[in-house]
Amino acid sequence: MTNEVHTTALPVQPSRGALRPIGMADAVIADGFWAQLQSLNASAMIRHCEDWMERLGWIGNFDAAVEGRLPEARRGREFSDSDVFKLMEAMAWEIGRTGDEDLDARFEALVDRILPVQEEDGYLNTRFGRPGQQPRYSNFEWGHELYCFGHLFQAAVARARTTGHDRFVAMACRAADHVCDTFGEGGLQAVGGHAEIEPALVELGRLTGEQRYLDQARLFVHRRGHGLLEDIEFGRAYYQDDEPIHESTVLRGHAVRATYLAAGAVDVAIESGDDLLLGAVQQQMATTLARRTYITGGMGAHHEGESFGSDFELPSDRAYAETCAGIGSIMANYRLLLATGDVRYADVIERTLFNVLATSPGEDGRSFFYANTLHQREPGVVPEPDAVSPRAAASMRAPWFAVSCCPTNVARTVASLSSYFAASTVDALHIYQYATGSVRAELDAGPVAVDVETDYPDGGEVAFTVTETLDTPWTLAMRVPAWAEGATLTVAGAAERVNPGLATVTESFEVGDTVVLSLPMRTRMTLPDVRMDALRGQVAFERGPLVLCVESVDVPSIDVVDQLRVAGGIRDEGATQVTVGMRTIALPDRAWPFESGNAASASADTVDVPLRPYHQWGNRGSSTMRVWIPLDADVATEAP
Amino acid sequence: MTNEVHTTALPVQPSRGALRPIGMADAVIADGFWAQLQSLNASAMIRHCEDWMERLGWIGNFDAAVEGRLPEARRGREFSDSDVFKLMEAMAWEIGRTGDEDLDARFEALVDRILPVQEEDGYLNTRFGRPGQQPRYSNFEWGHELYCFGHLFQAAVARARTTGHDRFVAMACRAADHVCDTFGEGGLQAVGGHAEIEPALVELGRLTGEQRYLDQARLFVHRRGHGLLEDIEFGRAYYQDDEPIHESTVLRGHAVRATYLAAGAVDVAIESGDDLLLGAVQQQMATTLARRTYITGGMGAHHEGESFGSDFELPSDRAYAETCAGIGSIMANYRLLLATGDVRYADVIERTLFNVLATSPGEDGRSFFYANTLHQREPGVVPEPDAVSPRAAASMRAPWFAVSCCPTNVARTVASLSSYFAASTVDALHIYQYATGSVRAELDAGPVAVDVETDYPDGGEVAFTVTETLDTPWTLAMRVPAWAEGATLTVAGAAERVNPGLATVTESFEVGDTVVLSLPMRTRMTLPDVRMDALRGQVAFERGPLVLCVESVDVPSIDVVDQLRVAGGIRDEGATQVTVGMRTIALPDRAWPFESGNAASASADTVDVPLRPYHQWGNRGSSTMRVWIPLDADVATEAP
Repeated sequence: MTNEVHTTALPVQPSRGALRPIGMADAVIADGFWAQLQSLNASAMIRHCEDWMERLGWIGNFDAAVEGRLPEARRGREFSDSDVFKLMEAMAWEIGRTGDEDLDARFEALVDRILPVQEEDGYLNTRFGRPGQQPRYSNFEWGHELYCFGHLFQAAVARARTTGHDRFVAMACRAADHVCDTFGEGGLQAVGGHAEIEPALVELGRLTGEQRYLDQARLFVHRRGHGLLEDIEFGRAYYQDDEPIHESTVLRGHAVRATYLAAGAVDVAIESGDDLLLGAVQQQMATTLARRTYITGGMGAHHEGESFGSDFELPSDRAYAETCAGIGSIMANYRLLLATGDVRYADVIERTLFNVLATSPGEDGRSFFYANTLHQREPGVVPEPDAVSPRAAASMRAPWFAVSCCPTNVARTVASLSSYFAASTVDALHIYQYATGSVRAELDAGPVAVDVETDYPDGGEVAFTVTETLDTPWTLAMRVPAWAEGATLTVAGAAERVNPGLATVTESFEVGDTVVLSLPMRTRMTLPDVRMDALRGQVAFERGPLVLCVESVDVPSIDVVDQLRVAGGIRDEGATQVTVGMRTIALPDRAWPFESGNAASASADTVDVPLRPYHQWGNRGSSTMRVWIPLDADVATEAP
Repeated sequence: MTNEVHTTALPVQPSRGALRPIGMADAVIADGFWAQLQSLNASAMIRHCEDWMERLGWIGNFDAAVEGRLPEARRGREFSDSDVFKLMEAMAWEIGRTGDEDLDARFEALVDRILPVQEEDGYLNTRFGRPGQQPRYSNFEWGHELYCFGHLFQAAVARARTTGHDRFVAMACRAADHVCDTFGEGGLQAVGGHAEIEPALVELGRLTGEQRYLDQARLFVHRRGHGLLEDIEFGRAYYQDDEPIHESTVLRGHAVRATYLAAGAVDVAIESGDDLLLGAVQQQMATTLARRTYITGGMGAHHEGESFGSDFELPSDRAYAETCAGIGSIMANYRLLLATGDVRYADVIERTLFNVLATSPGEDGRSFFYANTLHQREPGVVPEPDAVSPRAAASMRAPWFAVSCCPTNVARTVASLSSYFAASTVDALHIYQYATGSVRAELDAGPVAVDVETDYPDGGEVAFTVTETLDTPWTLAMRVPAWAEGATLTVAGAAERVNPGLATVTESFEVGDTVVLSLPMRTRMTLPDVRMDALRGQVAFERGPLVLCVESVDVPSIDVVDQLRVAGGIRDEGATQVTVGMRTIALPDRAWPFESGNAASASADTVDVPLRPYHQWGNRGSSTMRVWIPLDADVATEAP
């Protein structure tokens, strides 16, 4: 391995594919929206996760294991080890990003506590295998042992790629060897109830060059779908064990499990040359985006089973849209982007970053949404600051959850975020997400680099200045989002229209050359598909990549947002000054709500109601909120 | 006790209240819709339940207990005893209704097997308390011991009131004594996670005159809502332990638990003279009907937690509307009817009988809906005839469920149905539900009786002929449903308009006198409340008490019902010949479904699409189905 850790400091490093990823040393976010979130992660979120897991004893489980106090002293759910590993992955990326020495010391202190828990044969889990505990591998449906290993491996990959191979990485490799010994061709024919080890083993294989890790990941991906897991009330689709992934046509079941599996399947397809598998995942994702994804990019329409619903079943008020499923979607779509070069995957990533990932953490960095509803019907209950909340019952952001997968998942994703922003080909630098900073890539002919300056997403101007170039022509490629009809690109002072997709400039650039992409940042009104019953007669508003919403705290004249009806035009006087003309309806009070007439009457006046970015909602106390707002068309007037 | 069992053969016998119930000997359903369902119950449903519970070993659990083969030999869920008792309740009512001797022998054979399982102190449960089993009363949240006792008591009440006090009734009384000994004032301060023992103890107290049973029911009702049960992810509202029932304003949490508790609370209020409690339940039911009930009468909008949703959150496609919750609603509303005399409760009962209770069983009497969706989006999967289905995953009727509370609940309700159809006051005979047959009541001045003749609900003419009368005037009162604007009553050849509510005729009737109630059986179009997001832009059709639906098997020109848009008028040429003019839309195929334009285009032609009673749907194979159908108003044309 190399000590030049920074150029390989990236979460996904495929051995082939349309695009080459760019590590965090070469993709730097310096200012603006995402820089602020990375700062919040550094100053609050990571520490918050660490403090809570100390306080609740989830980290202490490792001490208890060493001191022989298990199972009595064990705290947290069966998968709590995984959240410690996800915290460590977040720390490792953050150490790589900033070189934070205090954080590095805290990371090492965690390693001190975890290392002695690993058993002789590489097994590591605080929940299974000791006297008084369930035996190892006695419950693949719910035991989450393989899932925990997966997060250990991803933490190790982050550590190795930012700091170097160390005792923690060696521990992960011993664990991976154990997994391969146990679950290889002649071993236990099993898969875990929650996919995660699949992409993790591939990445550890990519890191170490160990073919057996890649092989084991392939085995796990191929084994699933053949009913190895028990049938449960949710059905085997819950853990994607209902049909082989090669034969599936759409994501289904538990949305985090489904998206993690899709990510791992792309990894396996790439490393095993299985283009049929890659094509299957592409098709599954295409259908999922066309029919089973919220306007926010959120995935998962059911609270029950935390699962995808049927096609077009996307209720706002019961939107589960788990933060972790959004992250899983980013993971899968990023791998598809690298594999295929299809820029539409970067559109999905942007939508999900701004409207799911950025929505979860509160402005304080110490509270999180687990589920991301699109409609808060009743004012949310603000959780106690010191209480553990049920996972999705919290209608406001909560500091911690009994199942607290989301905060650590946000932390690790935000810390490694810049890697998702750009990529390269043999002769082109592709920039997909826009933030002030810099991007550098090694093309076949040598390194190129640009500085980026923008106040995106408030404004739509993105300026690229070449800071490193070649003697020969090379291509600067910039994503024009699908929503950006009318975008222009200005090269050498000349502006021209560019279509959604990739806008490219191929030049023998000089240092100092500037290209400006102008994306039209006007607020748009968006309609749902005609099959979306939950959204019929309603519209949403979007501005650039941001989904907007109306929050009752902004409309003093109403009790709840459900009284509002869109009746007038959009006024857009800047990012934080968008209003839409709406009427207020009087809410009927009837003993039985289904009648031949419709008693609601709308106000004569139209008032300009402010809209806000959805990701900001819920930061100003208890409120009601809508993304989709009914049109002012009284249904009674339309009846035949 | 008396041997004149028939006059007291009724499920609910309050000691006070606005109305006096009428037993099954005096309220006879002889022909028509409900007679057919009772025949199906007799010929198929009861036997089907018995056969399945034998086959799966749920009845065998009692043999295993006697033979010392528990816990190893135990089969079924922790509450499977309750379904055996519900079957026995169904059998007992059916024996009372028809005098079926074979059924009586089967009932006694079950008693033979269950009696020896009762322990010395009265405790009876095959799941708890033996070596290797969890201890008695170690899990009030999920153990269902008190719930099982409740169903034992209700079976015993049915047996006593139809056949007489016997060893089975004596066993139930010993069990009730045990419950009172264990959970009385100085005993265990606990409540069961699933209400049911509350109405059951009251009824057993009414039957036996044992005040302590009534007192114990009162204790259970008052104890709940104080956090005696563990907090769970669903919250304590799941089992109504979140707030005292006196202080609640609406039904919430698990819909079966909530409605059973409401029924028990009315019983307790009546027997303990607690008018505040009665008023509280009335208020809770009023709000629940105004805001949390489906057009079918179904209750429970969430699959998760099988629970009520928020106000106005009534998605058709995720309608849980569990059959048992419908039965719970009938139980609660019937008790409120008897207590208050408010005829609107009988409207709710009718709606729920025709559109929930009657929907559950298939035409074969050997398959059942557990959940009653109002929108089948994809063609349902027909369950294997010999397989046990997950409870609510079945999109078609299934023969049996892992949690199979619904089939036995339907059977016991159908067997005792006629009691719900009429009641009396000191000087009036009230008829609430219409079926060909006869009704008799003891007024203070003596007995009166009428024959009823009707083809309701196909037709709206109901003819009442006096068959027994008094020398003095008395009142015949007939419910005019809320939907029946324009109803008329014909007395002595003269017709006059009657308003929804109770239509009364007070006369010195002669035997042979006839009164005819004419209810307008035209198909009506119904609109949802403006706050029901899931129903916006959609209409439903109702005919008399029947909710109608469109099923894809009736529309050969479409693939799925989601293509239909209401565009024309209603044509009603009789009960089975209702059509509505609809257009067909082409379904768009887009990579991303949220756009500024709306690509769906409707056909120019309007076709007459047949509508069918909702309760019949799913009897002709796999199909898609809608109750609420979108109006043909393309949303794009309304956008401002």
